[in-house]
Amino acid sequence: MKKNDLESEFSKNSVKFIERWKKFLSFESISTDAAHESDCRDCALWLSNELQSIGLKSRLLETTSKPVVFGEFEGPPGSPTVVFYGHYDVQPVDPVEEWTSPPFEATLKNNRIYARGAEDNKGQVAYVIAALETLIENRALKCSLKLFIEGEEESGSSGIAASLEKWSDILKGDLLMVCDTGTVPSGAPTITMGLRGMIHCTVRLGGIGYDLHSGVHGGAVANPADQLARIISKLHNEDGSIAVPGFLDSVAEATVQDLALADAGMPDAETYKNFVGVYPEGGESNRSVAERVGFRPTIEINGFHSGYGGPGSKTIIPSFAEAKISCRLVPNQDPATCLAALVKYIEEVAPPPSLKLEIIEPAVGGGAVTISASSPWIGKAKLVLDQLSELPTVFRWEGASIPIVAELSRISNTVPILVGFGSEEDRIHAPNESFGIEQFRRGFLWASMFIGSLDLK
Amino acid sequence: MKKNDLESEFSKNSVKFIERWKKFLSFESISTDAAHESDCRDCALWLSNELQSIGLKSRLLETTSKPVVFGEFEGPPGSPTVVFYGHYDVQPVDPVEEWTSPPFEATLKNNRIYARGAEDNKGQVAYVIAALETLIENRALKCSLKLFIEGEEESGSSGIAASLEKWSDILKGDLLMVCDTGTVPSGAPTITMGLRGMIHCTVRLGGIGYDLHSGVHGGAVANPADQLARIISKLHNEDGSIAVPGFLDSVAEATVQDLALADAGMPDAETYKNFVGVYPEGGESNRSVAERVGFRPTIEINGFHSGYGGPGSKTIIPSFAEAKISCRLVPNQDPATCLAALVKYIEEVAPPPSLKLEIIEPAVGGGAVTISASSPWIGKAKLVLDQLSELPTVFRWEGASIPIVAELSRISNTVPILVGFGSEEDRIHAPNESFGIEQFRRGFLWASMFIGSLDLK
Repeated sequence: MKKNDLESEFSKNSVKFIERWKKFLSFESISTDAAHESDCRDCALWLSNELQSIGLKSRLLETTSKPVVFGEFEGPPGSPTVVFYGHYDVQPVDPVEEWTSPPFEATLKNNRIYARGAEDNKGQVAYVIAALETLIENRALKCSLKLFIEGEEESGSSGIAASLEKWSDILKGDLLMVCDTGTVPSGAPTITMGLRGMIHCTVRLGGIGYDLHSGVHGGAVANPADQLARIISKLHNEDGSIAVPGFLDSVAEATVQDLALADAGMPDAETYKNFVGVYPEGGESNRSVAERVGFRPTIEINGFHSGYGGPGSKTIIPSFAEAKISCRLVPNQDPATCLAALVKYIEEVAPPPSLKLEIIEPAVGGGAVTISASSPWIGKAKLVLDQLSELPTVFRWEGASIPIVAELSRISNTVPILVGFGSEEDRIHAPNESFGIEQFRRGFLWASMFIGSLDLK
Repeated sequence: MKKNDLESEFSKNSVKFIERWKKFLSFESISTDAAHESDCRDCALWLSNELQSIGLKSRLLETTSKPVVFGEFEGPPGSPTVVFYGHYDVQPVDPVEEWTSPPFEATLKNNRIYARGAEDNKGQVAYVIAALETLIENRALKCSLKLFIEGEEESGSSGIAASLEKWSDILKGDLLMVCDTGTVPSGAPTITMGLRGMIHCTVRLGGIGYDLHSGVHGGAVANPADQLARIISKLHNEDGSIAVPGFLDSVAEATVQDLALADAGMPDAETYKNFVGVYPEGGESNRSVAERVGFRPTIEINGFHSGYGGPGSKTIIPSFAEAKISCRLVPNQDPATCLAALVKYIEEVAPPPSLKLEIIEPAVGGGAVTISASSPWIGKAKLVLDQLSELPTVFRWEGASIPIVAELSRISNTVPILVGFGSEEDRIHAPNESFGIEQFRRGFLWASMFIGSLDLK
């Protein structure tokens, strides 16, 4: 179908598309929180029914954790097979008091839909479903499809990681389409050429029976908040580089060509500050921002909680301190090796044994992904994207992780094509997440034009 | 009055004494939290009425913050004047979910009263009121009294500190009686010979507009939780000593005699661990526990909060991190000088200016107090205490602070007598604070026997 025809299809059906998207957003499918187990399953069942209603075969693939929604469409013999990957689970909503509308009641404001998951990833899955529905209704779908929409992307995909091998027969394909990324700040169409891998854990220092009076006990016992801060301070050197022995051993340096493409796709420091509030001045001081985000691993503190946090002062020694730590990994790093190095180092630098150290739920979320710019599928994607904007298509090494993509690409024998329409304004993972109707429309055009362009090999 | 007579007075009137104590505990007089402003005033008004009902003159002394309850009794000409200091405010109650009974509904269990303030300081003020009521009813009160019961001890006493000078006429006396301390673990009667001073502040690192996706931004921006941990890690050297330049300059070393008395009053490491859960292995590694608590300053982290703290993982860079810090000071240290040194050092070791550093509400809570063991009032107190127990009276340097005592002692020209009946089991400042009926009874005997023993000079 031509771009003009697809644009008028969107206008005609946008109310229906947006209603389906809003319904999708009403499920509280927070995968990291066991209290939302049944919300996740309800969401998967609803999604599977939607895929059937637009003309796909669909079923749930059970895992040891959340089920995968698996949809299929059989194209003509000899046509390519698109494996589409997405996720129906979302991040937690806290701090919930910062939301200006309820996180699970999708709210339209300024031509944007506000809700947890509005963009990541329900919004981007919803425009792909709208594109497929349109192609099928217009008998314009000429390739085979396998939709693989999981429910634990935001919590490490451990359940499906264990099951992937046994699904290798049903997952074989030619390309792996993923719409879970964004565009550069200018809004130019963007192809993501790399994803970072992920490991994470929680570190707890405790052993004290209750919060202690800081006068009676101050100087006697080790302070858990102070000692955990000391551990964290030892994860990086003064120049911002990672101090954990062995962590960086296998990291490959980026090529000059990739660094040049990556630098070109990175906003300048003022633009960055306008979005985020601060200049991009963290991390390794001797490398560019694009390199630090795209090609270097990180160790980040996602949370640190200990003792009193209310108004005024409270003179206690907290009974415990807890920090959540996650690391982004780059190609060549083995996640399990990095996790073992991190855990060993924390145990080594931990304070005297009078406090109790626990490393809770150390977990591997997946390896890094890198894609060759010379793949013909990348060339095909660029041709479609060049029609969507006055601005030339940008190649970007984004720095984020989609835990299962590396494994899924290997098992399905596919080339990943990572194109998405997120922007910094969407505030994914934060309160008041949103996704613009115009972003949704561009995603619809991308998905329908790209998938519609795939026919006999 | 004789000990036997006072014991039978207690038996006869204990229901009345305990009912008054429970009523006192029902006021939510949390001075650090502005939401409890009127609860503090209600508590002061009630207390003032109670003092009148037992035969004292009483009124409120207004300050820029919470009012002081001021009660008076005029003894025979030539008799000594006891200035009694206490406080009617209490600590916050969080984490409230850890309380097994409501913190402001005093609950009797196992012969203990459970409530916020059960011990600190409402319980100990309540037994003094019971003692005064008994002495007055039996015409056995032969000295003058000035009761000075403030409402901001738990939040730094800044309001009354500003007003003390103007009350110097009405506060003159001979000794300053304070029942806001405890006994050693054996339960032996204990005279506290020193209190530490206090300064505190909140340190905040922010400037980021919202929680950031740790993949998209990890490596680009400085992580506030990580950077605040780095600041905190620089407050102490590896040997546990304070690293802030100038902070220790004027600290006087304890005398050999005082150290010997202090060591004798300190529980052994196993006893300590049985109470607290960990061995007393924090702080300066080259000094004894008794010295670290009684004669050395501390810098403690009372709380550290940043980012995600719920179940599982959340891959964000927190938009800010905040730590509450308080320091205990020892004799010769000037609180304002120490506070300035701390603030200057934090500003110096803070990370690059891309994150915003704020030092919120830096405050001085008062200087340290030290008392000479040769004072005749101390001798008089020891004589009374020796009658209360089979165990010999212990001298202790406790490490806690009662912010205003140093100033109050100077202005009233009095010798502090610090005797109280708290124990580690009371869990002051923590959830499920309590005070035993037997502790209350011993406090009643101490206060009535000691005050009753003071007559013509």
